[in-house]
Amino acid sequence: MKIVLIGAGRLATHLGPALREAGHDVVQVFSRTLASAETLAGKVGAEAVTTMDKVVTTADVYVCALTDTALPVLLPALCKGREDALFLHTAGSMPLEVFCGKARRYGVLYPMQTFSKERQLDFSEIPVFIEADSPETLTVVNSIACSISRRVTPLSSEARRHLHLSAVFACNFANHCYALAADVLGAHHIPFDTLLPLIDETARKVHELPPHEAQTGPAIRYDEQVIRRQAAMLDGLPREIYELMSRSIHESSKQ
Amino acid sequence: MKIVLIGAGRLATHLGPALREAGHDVVQVFSRTLASAETLAGKVGAEAVTTMDKVVTTADVYVCALTDTALPVLLPALCKGREDALFLHTAGSMPLEVFCGKARRYGVLYPMQTFSKERQLDFSEIPVFIEADSPETLTVVNSIACSISRRVTPLSSEARRHLHLSAVFACNFANHCYALAADVLGAHHIPFDTLLPLIDETARKVHELPPHEAQTGPAIRYDEQVIRRQAAMLDGLPREIYELMSRSIHESSKQ
Repeated sequence: MKIVLIGAGRLATHLGPALREAGHDVVQVFSRTLASAETLAGKVGAEAVTTMDKVVTTADVYVCALTDTALPVLLPALCKGREDALFLHTAGSMPLEVFCGKARRYGVLYPMQTFSKERQLDFSEIPVFIEADSPETLTVVNSIACSISRRVTPLSSEARRHLHLSAVFACNFANHCYALAADVLGAHHIPFDTLLPLIDETARKVHELPPHEAQTGPAIRYDEQVIRRQAAMLDGLPREIYELMSRSIHESSKQ
Repeated sequence: MKIVLIGAGRLATHLGPALREAGHDVVQVFSRTLASAETLAGKVGAEAVTTMDKVVTTADVYVCALTDTALPVLLPALCKGREDALFLHTAGSMPLEVFCGKARRYGVLYPMQTFSKERQLDFSEIPVFIEADSPETLTVVNSIACSISRRVTPLSSEARRHLHLSAVFACNFANHCYALAADVLGAHHIPFDTLLPLIDETARKVHELPPHEAQTGPAIRYDEQVIRRQAAMLDGLPREIYELMSRSIHESSKQ
């Protein structure tokens, strides 16, 4: 497939090379930021472009890896004059309908993972959730998705937005808990890597036990004395988070 | 060493067998709950006892693996008549001084890990933090700790209580984020294991990147539209948590 990548952020930086390795021809990378476009274009042997009028009209697929704010803004100009192409977006919380009235053949290819430019990932292990305007288009989206991942599942927009919300909890908020832990340790000059065996076991545990059953610590024991003392060691937002999370763990344990 | 285990909860259930495998003689397991005492005693070839007057006075070490509430209550009766023994507790947030005036030789052996009875763990990989009333006692505590773990570090009560607080964030609160994610998915009949590749990568990532740099998602991008839409998908405490965590991630990103 002849593919144009719209966006050069974290996700695009992992998706581009995966598409290329799968044998697709990534012809252009579009980003308003020239440096980002050039860096990713260099990696996938594509041309870097920063304005929509430079985007070719002859690609088979336009893959939009953009923020939820940028996507609807860019779509009209992107779709115009490229009526025969397939348009895809990669966003967890954006419905398929964002393409309605703008494109004829469209779909979603949502790789559910946390992407950082610094990390190498095996894309074939990343769960990819797909959706399309019709069964015919879904067959095409499926073949693209299966060329880069072994874990492809069709999923409705409605289910996908709940999946994305759950991913925010399981990834972004869990990572923020690590960050708050790092702040506590940093203030006392204890290296963060002290926590790595605990972080690893916490993640491994939920492969075997549902997270509600895996819970340990002062909040699930409802050890009020420890909870009060620990909350008093914190200020501001971390303290509010400590109290709210402890309360929520205790509430969950009663269900 | 001739050891008596006071407590038969999650931690004791992992510590007992580790002590036994290291060649120590675990002679008794004390718990007010006969079934718990018997289960663990059976595992380590010890006698199960449920009242303090049945606890032998001739052990070398009494290891208290109790909640922070139970420990100070049990200590006076335990120490009395056993003046020559070494007393240890295993609690992250309890100071060494809890033994003051009750015992002559005492210390702390805090294994920082999340223990569930259902999970097998390699105790030798668990970081253990130790403290004692004197350099002489510390030598003994160190030799016990090193017999069960490869990662033993002396640490003051003050530093340990901060370490324990950070562990609550990195383990208990991170796990609660998994649990809240499971609730969101469960309501839409999506299996929890869909999230495991994401959970694993989130944990692996902080081996290489500081958690503040590893952050991704709508809150760090400050994608207000997604944040508002996702908060509206939740009710009650999960919604409060969503909003507070998003705010805290955004605040952290500005530092």
